[in-house]
Amino acid sequence: MAEEKKAKAPKVADPVAASYDVATQEMIKRAQDLGVETCFDRAVTLKPCNIGATGICCKNCGMGPCRLPLPKGGIEGEDTRKGICGASPNTIAARNFIRMIAAGASAHSDHGRCVAEVFMSAARKETDAYQIKDIQKLLQIAPCLDVAITVEKDGEVLDRDIDEIALEVAEVALNEWGKAEGELKYLKRAPAPRYELWKKMGVLPRNIDREVVEIMHRTHIGVDQDYKNLMKQGTRCAIADGWGGSMLATDLQDVLFGTPYPLQSEANLGVMKKDHVNLVIHGHEPVLSEMIVAVAQGQEMIDYCKQAGAKGIQLSGICCTANEILQRHGVPLCGTFLQQELAIITGACDAMVVDIQCIMQNLANVAKCFHTKLITTHPIAKMEQDNVIHIEFDEHHAIEDAKRIVKMAIDNYANRGEDVAIPQHKNPVIAGFGVESIEYHLGGSFRGSYYTLNDNIINGRIRGIGAVVGCNNVRTRHNYDHITVVKELIKNDVIVLTTGCNAIACGMEGLLTPETAQVFCGPGLAEVCETVGIPPVLHVGSCVDNSRILLAATEVVKAGGLGKDISDVPAAGSAPEWMSEKAISIGQYVVASGVYTVFGTTFPTSGAPVFQKYLFEDFEKMYGGMWDFEPDPIKHAHKMIAHIDKKRAALGIDKARERVLMDMADRQKLDVA
Amino acid sequence: MAEEKKAKAPKVADPVAASYDVATQEMIKRAQDLGVETCFDRAVTLKPCNIGATGICCKNCGMGPCRLPLPKGGIEGEDTRKGICGASPNTIAARNFIRMIAAGASAHSDHGRCVAEVFMSAARKETDAYQIKDIQKLLQIAPCLDVAITVEKDGEVLDRDIDEIALEVAEVALNEWGKAEGELKYLKRAPAPRYELWKKMGVLPRNIDREVVEIMHRTHIGVDQDYKNLMKQGTRCAIADGWGGSMLATDLQDVLFGTPYPLQSEANLGVMKKDHVNLVIHGHEPVLSEMIVAVAQGQEMIDYCKQAGAKGIQLSGICCTANEILQRHGVPLCGTFLQQELAIITGACDAMVVDIQCIMQNLANVAKCFHTKLITTHPIAKMEQDNVIHIEFDEHHAIEDAKRIVKMAIDNYANRGEDVAIPQHKNPVIAGFGVESIEYHLGGSFRGSYYTLNDNIINGRIRGIGAVVGCNNVRTRHNYDHITVVKELIKNDVIVLTTGCNAIACGMEGLLTPETAQVFCGPGLAEVCETVGIPPVLHVGSCVDNSRILLAATEVVKAGGLGKDISDVPAAGSAPEWMSEKAISIGQYVVASGVYTVFGTTFPTSGAPVFQKYLFEDFEKMYGGMWDFEPDPIKHAHKMIAHIDKKRAALGIDKARERVLMDMADRQKLDVA
Repeated sequence: MAEEKKAKAPKVADPVAASYDVATQEMIKRAQDLGVETCFDRAVTLKPCNIGATGICCKNCGMGPCRLPLPKGGIEGEDTRKGICGASPNTIAARNFIRMIAAGASAHSDHGRCVAEVFMSAARKETDAYQIKDIQKLLQIAPCLDVAITVEKDGEVLDRDIDEIALEVAEVALNEWGKAEGELKYLKRAPAPRYELWKKMGVLPRNIDREVVEIMHRTHIGVDQDYKNLMKQGTRCAIADGWGGSMLATDLQDVLFGTPYPLQSEANLGVMKKDHVNLVIHGHEPVLSEMIVAVAQGQEMIDYCKQAGAKGIQLSGICCTANEILQRHGVPLCGTFLQQELAIITGACDAMVVDIQCIMQNLANVAKCFHTKLITTHPIAKMEQDNVIHIEFDEHHAIEDAKRIVKMAIDNYANRGEDVAIPQHKNPVIAGFGVESIEYHLGGSFRGSYYTLNDNIINGRIRGIGAVVGCNNVRTRHNYDHITVVKELIKNDVIVLTTGCNAIACGMEGLLTPETAQVFCGPGLAEVCETVGIPPVLHVGSCVDNSRILLAATEVVKAGGLGKDISDVPAAGSAPEWMSEKAISIGQYVVASGVYTVFGTTFPTSGAPVFQKYLFEDFEKMYGGMWDFEPDPIKHAHKMIAHIDKKRAALGIDKARERVLMDMADRQKLDVA
Repeated sequence: MAEEKKAKAPKVADPVAASYDVATQEMIKRAQDLGVETCFDRAVTLKPCNIGATGICCKNCGMGPCRLPLPKGGIEGEDTRKGICGASPNTIAARNFIRMIAAGASAHSDHGRCVAEVFMSAARKETDAYQIKDIQKLLQIAPCLDVAITVEKDGEVLDRDIDEIALEVAEVALNEWGKAEGELKYLKRAPAPRYELWKKMGVLPRNIDREVVEIMHRTHIGVDQDYKNLMKQGTRCAIADGWGGSMLATDLQDVLFGTPYPLQSEANLGVMKKDHVNLVIHGHEPVLSEMIVAVAQGQEMIDYCKQAGAKGIQLSGICCTANEILQRHGVPLCGTFLQQELAIITGACDAMVVDIQCIMQNLANVAKCFHTKLITTHPIAKMEQDNVIHIEFDEHHAIEDAKRIVKMAIDNYANRGEDVAIPQHKNPVIAGFGVESIEYHLGGSFRGSYYTLNDNIINGRIRGIGAVVGCNNVRTRHNYDHITVVKELIKNDVIVLTTGCNAIACGMEGLLTPETAQVFCGPGLAEVCETVGIPPVLHVGSCVDNSRILLAATEVVKAGGLGKDISDVPAAGSAPEWMSEKAISIGQYVVASGVYTVFGTTFPTSGAPVFQKYLFEDFEKMYGGMWDFEPDPIKHAHKMIAHIDKKRAALGIDKARERVLMDMADRQKLDVA
């Protein structure tokens, strides 16, 4: 069989069809010329299973997997499809859907727990590497965890000792993962009507881990076989992610590493430098990469690097570790999820250091073809292949670990081959937004609330808020849906908050600069961006930082004039190129928080029409937010806009918007551009 | 399409090929005559996916599912199969395997947690329905949870108040699910060398829930891609099941409901009575069924039943709720997992009340064809179909819930149709064994240790111990593999401990009586059984009660003469007809406890030969226990016997055994029988 394959040239991807990004196209082509297989080529040869992809393959017991027939041409009359045990398409699709939530919530929350444990080490002063960096943030989150920040002494109210607060925050936070009684403390950060709705619906998470475990139990053969009841637990678990594990991850990272504020950097493979040591950081957990950034900037490593004959160390990042170190330190973005193999294929990557999540196992195969050292660092994420180096990170000797890694990259600079091809494409980005900086930039005259943002939404300059997030998916053209959805939204005066690989895609396309407002935005949004000096697309961080979007939405509600709950706000969510189970968990907590959310590319319930209708329609009645699916990016954006307009109408602010729309001359100019 | 199907008669199962049990055959035939579809028929029309069944379909992200090609005829040279991300067959199979462990461990442990919560209610005296029933057991487990049972007062050591102990046990136990630091307290109940091995291997579970969550995280796209590292976490999670959630479930149930002691009952569909109200209890969690048993035996319900014209209430059980109420109250077994639809098809089932796990959604469709009331009772396990009645059980009004259910069954007696066909097949059983009763029956002269059991193993009368457990699987002939494996083991002087559906199958076949020893056992085992008056197959309970087998094995080690660790004992585990994810978790914790474990029917890693070799061979070097697969039940039993003999040889007791085997006359008689 191996010989047969050799006989004919292997099918490979068409670079231009595979990616919207020129740098990526160049590297796909180069990989093919060098005979190095990438995920783009595998997508051509390996088709997804159309039964599994539509949610109706059940492999939750050893009598199956039961692959139900596809509902081609729709189901007439009663849907009699069933698995061996009698599981209906709805049961099977709901089981699969909430197991995705369980995995996604686990990924985020386990990340959060790791940060909480490092936070505990810092609070206990067991480590020199980590300290409480952002005291303001600590004081801000402590009350949300019922930790007092003042103390009464002799009738006087005094500030409590910071170390004491940190220690108690660490204890209370860690307890959120597994406490035996009560409910998650952060739930009350949501608008009161939202909290009350969750209570009424019976979806207040008791702790973080338990909700995952209960999903795994309920989806076991012969437990829950009512898709509505299954989704109730899926919702509870997703809330435990968004308002629990993810939010704690973001907050504790901010306290340890600093809350991001706007800064400038660059994005795309072109940030790598031929005459520098290129160390690419990839993954999701910034605990180690923070140390790498610190070490790489130190004189010791700079000197060591010069001795090695390189002009300096060029750090750059892929996926959300990239976003984390961009947001806090301005480290440039090397690329999105689908570009990870390509960073090595440049021939200029001296080391790639990975932590957790979205790391392709094929990196090891690609690294074998070049001089690149591929270094895994997390005890829970190793690789099978023997060319992978494992340097296990531990917060108790974090600096030493980081130095070892940076040195390894520098030492490897000398081994670089002649054939180096860094694509000459990159764009400037302004990143580092968050709840606090949005308040600062779009705040009122005293810069202390979201009043100005709300005011501009009410007067119609800003039509609404789009949260566009998520992964890349090799089943659609790389970055094309991301860029098209975002451009269409800002063209229609919808301000965009972005995270994850969507943020990186926007950065690569140059959408994360204030200057783009005049080129791509509708007149209302352009005016606001120009006045305030912000990009129309605000990079608010990594995937766990979608919690920042929840809190920003809550701030909008608090600032007044746009309803009483998140579901009243003219806003919509989107993940045009999602692929990870985390995206499903995120989507579900965003929906449960009251936001209409559209996914692109594929939707994992389409084989079970009744269940899908439940997610797409019935959820709106229950939670004010619901799912939708639209693979065409222009239609996708317009579905979001239609929802935003519906919310504007409900608030009675649609008239204001119509007046702004009257400025046709501006719009025509825009359409030409 | 629906019309096409109608045109030709639907394919149905051959009853005799489908089941080894005559009662089952009769009911399959009856279902077909009545046009009611059962799982046996669905097994004929719905083939399992051969890629998914062998572990090499990955659907853990939205770019797939990636179905790798089957390794037909073996893999020559390097195995280059990979998913879109580059995941190897080993990675994919290991991901799937440990997600099965996660689901199985979740099912057992969540069950345990529910019991622990009811236990807490009882300890807090918030409920009248539940009390501390077995004080001895409470006093026995308290020290294992570091709860003191004595108190020092004025220099005197006094017994501590039972209520106080119960409350502290409840608190400590509930904390095991999610505590933020430390490790599971029960781990130290294992033999010391086993605990030290787990410590060395880094698999001591930190708490119960966290290990499940970490599996879900590690199996997310791009996290752990080293099958060895994945299995390390799978092992840790499985240990958290066996020595954590399951063991706590068993112990707390014993304290609340009483530790089982041997008693007599019956098994098979024939236990249902035509002139009685038949209430069938199905599922796994005895919390509600304990109340149903209590209520059904009360005068109020007996009178109510007579008024309805029935001679009495016949309770019977399916799956492990059946085993629980059999072990403690002698309620007869109605049947195994695959007979659940058939109990309704008798036409004599007035109500079937279900709780959690292994309940077929098709029950609702079958119930529609008869008068049977199908009642779900657990908040986490509902059914989609509208003929299902949900009576949500709550420990605070448990008696009322139970009465409502029993009354509903009685009221429905009048609605029974003319066409009732209860198969006239059942067998007597002796059940109710456990660590304590094995000690009593097989104990030394002071009946306080496992000395006599060990002595008989050492002298070769008993060749070894077989733990045969697990489900039914419609992909093999119902009960045939169960019965064949068990008969072959006892024929070769291997005493069998059984739980779950294997125990029910043995009961149906009449193997759970002391009388069978003379018919089916080898001479050594027959002699022991006759002397002591026990069956050669000891029913030790439900699936969570496999923890009893772990503790019995530990007692064997403690009693001396058979090595220092469980892995030294001449013992082997088996699940001939497994199908549930719980079985995989059980198998893994049994393997990790040092026991060679053979599964029948199918094995979910056969598409990844390297990973499978790791489970089947390398695990023995690491843990002294390993997996194996053998669908032929005779070969299956002989693989277990070969392992037992290997352990006997290692202990130097193989010579004793050879002497016993010299009695050929006895053996020839047996072979004829």
